[in-house]
Amino acid sequence: MCDIAFQDCYPQDVAHCFGCGSLNQHGHRIKTYWDGERTITRFTPRPEHTAVPGFVYGGLLASLIDCHSTGSGAAALARARGIDMVRDGAPRCVTGSLEVRYTAPTPLGPELEIRGIIEEVKGRKVVVSSQLLADGVVCVTGRAVVIEMPQGMGMDRG
Amino acid sequence: MCDIAFQDCYPQDVAHCFGCGSLNQHGHRIKTYWDGERTITRFTPRPEHTAVPGFVYGGLLASLIDCHSTGSGAAALARARGIDMVRDGAPRCVTGSLEVRYTAPTPLGPELEIRGIIEEVKGRKVVVSSQLLADGVVCVTGRAVVIEMPQGMGMDRG
Repeated sequence: MCDIAFQDCYPQDVAHCFGCGSLNQHGHRIKTYWDGERTITRFTPRPEHTAVPGFVYGGLLASLIDCHSTGSGAAALARARGIDMVRDGAPRCVTGSLEVRYTAPTPLGPELEIRGIIEEVKGRKVVVSSQLLADGVVCVTGRAVVIEMPQGMGMDRG
Repeated sequence: MCDIAFQDCYPQDVAHCFGCGSLNQHGHRIKTYWDGERTITRFTPRPEHTAVPGFVYGGLLASLIDCHSTGSGAAALARARGIDMVRDGAPRCVTGSLEVRYTAPTPLGPELEIRGIIEEVKGRKVVVSSQLLADGVVCVTGRAVVIEMPQGMGMDRG
């Protein structure tokens, strides 16, 4: 497993995402890695990330799967194109669609693990399916279609 | 339009959600209201809620649609049962599944408006479809299946 996260390979002008940008001081700054053919992200929610007492709120779980998927998509595109992300920077994906199923309440406390499978890489599009586990139990499943960002989107505003 | 938000009718033991709980000091505390047959939520993202500079990150948008949907579901259940939420408290829903489509980048800056349609009420289940608009443009659409929370879930932990 390479010890440099996908998100740490994003170019600096597109590394501000609240969920995964290394430059966002207020955000979650999730880190995603290859684990064999799978991708993996670990994150421990904070006490305030509650739904009802004792459980993680669903919006955070959707957010984690979203950024885990854009990161996984970036790495999948890089691999398909033979790009060395650490040396040359990662492609940057945005989400086209996201489906999340909450199959069990997610306990607040333990570190969460999100496992991703690259289902399809086609041109600029990647389909990523994910499982989010707490204490080894699958609590959420997700499927995201992510798309390589149009060039210059990071420069349009702000 | 009643000026008391759905979320302000949640019983206090289940009013801690990061997205919509009135008791969560760190959260978004979104407020949803009836607007005729529709439901409506307004929220202005903070500067750090960025995706790439100038745009709102998708995880927040999914979160907003999620809590807007659970709130809309609560109100729809109350209406179907003839419950006066302000007097007797609102049912509390959790999300079973959430689908979000990002149809246009959401600009960071303007207040966002989320409009909900109650598609179906069946027993403890409600289907809510939503549109999220910025500056009058639909940027995200959503569909959520929400379910009335099992009794005592708010008391299981914490």
